[in-house]
Amino acid sequence: MIEVAIGIDIGGTNTKFGIVEESGSMLTQGSIKTDSQKGPKDFLARLNQAICEHLDRLEGEILIKGIGIGAPNANCHRGTIEHPANLPWEGVTPIVEMFQEYFPYRMIITNDANAAAVGEMMFGGAKGMRDFILITLGTGLGSGIVANGQPINGHGGLAGEMGHTLIKPGGRLCGCGSRGCLETYCSATGILRTVFELQADTLEPSALRSVSWEELSAQKIFEEAQKGDPIALKAFELTGAYLGEGLASAVAYFNPEAIFLWGGLTKAGKLIFEPTRRHMEAHLMKVYKGKVKLVPSKLQDINIAVLGAAAMIWKEVKEERVQGLGLGVS
Amino acid sequence: MIEVAIGIDIGGTNTKFGIVEESGSMLTQGSIKTDSQKGPKDFLARLNQAICEHLDRLEGEILIKGIGIGAPNANCHRGTIEHPANLPWEGVTPIVEMFQEYFPYRMIITNDANAAAVGEMMFGGAKGMRDFILITLGTGLGSGIVANGQPINGHGGLAGEMGHTLIKPGGRLCGCGSRGCLETYCSATGILRTVFELQADTLEPSALRSVSWEELSAQKIFEEAQKGDPIALKAFELTGAYLGEGLASAVAYFNPEAIFLWGGLTKAGKLIFEPTRRHMEAHLMKVYKGKVKLVPSKLQDINIAVLGAAAMIWKEVKEERVQGLGLGVS
Repeated sequence: MIEVAIGIDIGGTNTKFGIVEESGSMLTQGSIKTDSQKGPKDFLARLNQAICEHLDRLEGEILIKGIGIGAPNANCHRGTIEHPANLPWEGVTPIVEMFQEYFPYRMIITNDANAAAVGEMMFGGAKGMRDFILITLGTGLGSGIVANGQPINGHGGLAGEMGHTLIKPGGRLCGCGSRGCLETYCSATGILRTVFELQADTLEPSALRSVSWEELSAQKIFEEAQKGDPIALKAFELTGAYLGEGLASAVAYFNPEAIFLWGGLTKAGKLIFEPTRRHMEAHLMKVYKGKVKLVPSKLQDINIAVLGAAAMIWKEVKEERVQGLGLGVS
Repeated sequence: MIEVAIGIDIGGTNTKFGIVEESGSMLTQGSIKTDSQKGPKDFLARLNQAICEHLDRLEGEILIKGIGIGAPNANCHRGTIEHPANLPWEGVTPIVEMFQEYFPYRMIITNDANAAAVGEMMFGGAKGMRDFILITLGTGLGSGIVANGQPINGHGGLAGEMGHTLIKPGGRLCGCGSRGCLETYCSATGILRTVFELQADTLEPSALRSVSWEELSAQKIFEEAQKGDPIALKAFELTGAYLGEGLASAVAYFNPEAIFLWGGLTKAGKLIFEPTRRHMEAHLMKVYKGKVKLVPSKLQDINIAVLGAAAMIWKEVKEERVQGLGLGVS
């Protein structure tokens, strides 16, 4: 008999899922179009069908230990998705209750970055760590924070929005309505905005001056930086400066053992890690200096949100096993 | 038989202690001069003597359940005080190990603001809360953060330094060596600096213009603000603006149920709470707006650090009792 957990990552365009063993090995994975405008009921029926097809193709007897879901604006306490920005589902959708009509199993929902952090803790570079931060650098900046061995969900289940902490008072307008949020500087979109600001502010020649806003990508900026393009290089330096400052404040709050960076931007390697580390260290209090690891996620080329969603189930199963043995959760 | 916990708050000038029952009632309290230049050994001998004198005066049989210590730069994992800024003890002092020669009991050490947060949770306004922040506004700004029902200590035991998160890049010089730390704006010293900045920047008449730096205090600023002094009023408004901005970022990290403010500055009541709440709400993401309580600590006129240090012992005792009954810690 094969024991598995199902991990699901609900995104604005696609919803991905995977069937994961306790070792972290992903037996199979798939995806469907979220097509959210048809409503959550239609979505869940199609998701159920896709998952069942994958389960049917597995050999041997399968025991499902539970289903973990990562989703935007997920409220882990209530099992709901609430006022999501990138799904047209109005108000509060009781997603866990609705999905349990298909799968009457243990079900956990949380935001995608929190799920990713649990993935890093169970299967990645944070194994054995009790205090760390995982930052996902994508279109925006997501964060999953683990303290005392537990992800921080907060009272309303909506903690870990480091992308919306203030890094520059009165700074760039953010999708959330505020100005100066960290993710307007430190994300794939943020570095793009920085390139355009540098083109406006300086007279430096740059290959990027022939690229439009719509054509430009973080990948393109990385390629030009590797060729020594001055604006591309400066953009990475500035991104690292803002991120380093933001991380220094996060260290003052959490005193983590390590900070993991995940996502496309981290593929720039030294170009992003070196300035980020340098500016973080420059802003750290003396007691923290040189003591916080800043490293890439070890789940870089894996769908970390799907794996992390499944990891939440395995984490609970493991804790219950330890409690059952009367050892207490360490 | 009376069961008690001893709470100790080690400060730069004075060290205070109290003997506290599980109900939170403080049976007796005392203090000694820290006189730290004579070294930790001399200090602990005098502290032991003072505590024993107080214990001897209590009637009935006393059972000591443990000793909680709040101290600057305390490392809760190692039981040490490390490189403290306001004590001349060099390097790392193994304070728990040294003090256990006198008191061979359960002993917990943590930083004073973390201890205060546990006090608020056990005996104050945070009873029953699992996610909240306590901020102490004194000479500096201290913070104790509770998530998932546990104080966040961090990997090195030095978490919760919200006073040293960055609020204004390139701003005021901080005692920690950085610039723009939150506590350089939001503390008794911070509001004093703001008054001097306003005197320099504006031509407003003010009764405070006849007061020197050394004579000025937060209390004096409060008194003038009550009389309608424009610079004093503006100083409270600005202090609230910075604190509100800082709290909005803290909410994005932690999504707390409540934020408690403690300390002299909070005695200004509406003068500090109103602008802080207004600026916090203005900077909150939509999902958090109107949902975070901002209230004064309920342990305002008590030595919260002493009570909180004792509360750490009672918290552990209570958790063990629950675990002993096989109920798990909720």
